[in-house]
Amino acid sequence: MYFHSMAKLLSKLLPVFVCTFFFMLQSSAQNKEPYVRIAKIVVDSLQLENYKAALKEGIETAIRTEPGVLRMYAMYDKENPTHITVFETYANKEAYQSHIQTAHFKKYKTRTLNMVKSLELIDVVPIAFESKQQ
Amino acid sequence: MYFHSMAKLLSKLLPVFVCTFFFMLQSSAQNKEPYVRIAKIVVDSLQLENYKAALKEGIETAIRTEPGVLRMYAMYDKENPTHITVFETYANKEAYQSHIQTAHFKKYKTRTLNMVKSLELIDVVPIAFESKQQ
Repeated sequence: MYFHSMAKLLSKLLPVFVCTFFFMLQSSAQNKEPYVRIAKIVVDSLQLENYKAALKEGIETAIRTEPGVLRMYAMYDKENPTHITVFETYANKEAYQSHIQTAHFKKYKTRTLNMVKSLELIDVVPIAFESKQQ
Repeated sequence: MYFHSMAKLLSKLLPVFVCTFFFMLQSSAQNKEPYVRIAKIVVDSLQLENYKAALKEGIETAIRTEPGVLRMYAMYDKENPTHITVFETYANKEAYQSHIQTAHFKKYKTRTLNMVKSLELIDVVPIAFESKQQ
């Protein structure tokens, strides 16, 4: 009798177990994937030098202090110096979420709030990432 | 008399020497600067997989065989998979000019000619290029 009701309970819980298992599997796969993004920023031309200094400081601090921030390349268009591109690689999505909670990121955001005219964030997927061994 | 005409000749040639010196100085400074570029490519959706394979092969060959090709990161937009971005760093402008003369680059160009719907090339200037030591 006891065995029968246990079996009944388990059979009811089975779909929950299966769903939990696949959810965990998916989350763990997501967490292992690097998170890569392009940020396109247009800056107020009058504040360009201050903006570049703030961006540079933010990037240097992130790479030095955050284990999950792997790569940050910031550049401006030669023809349109107020057009900035930042190419960012994080170890995973969680590393990015942790990055935007840091004091240095918040400082950068506050400092540049009135300098940024537009910001576009584009999630990207790597096709080939190759570089010379350093 | 001989000394006098030599001095006169030299004084006439002096501006030429000075100009040549500054021109050489400038050229040598230009050649030492890394050449960094973003290529934005829109690909025919029906040929996307073939295009990505050709691009990956071209990048891997360039990094492996060309000393002046330092970094090539190719990616597609998650939301618009036909929109490709390639972020390229060459040791200098000459390394880029040599790259586009290679057999593998010409092969890539020929192979992808009918796959590419648009191509935009943007010269950029680094603000901060930081990455974790590998």
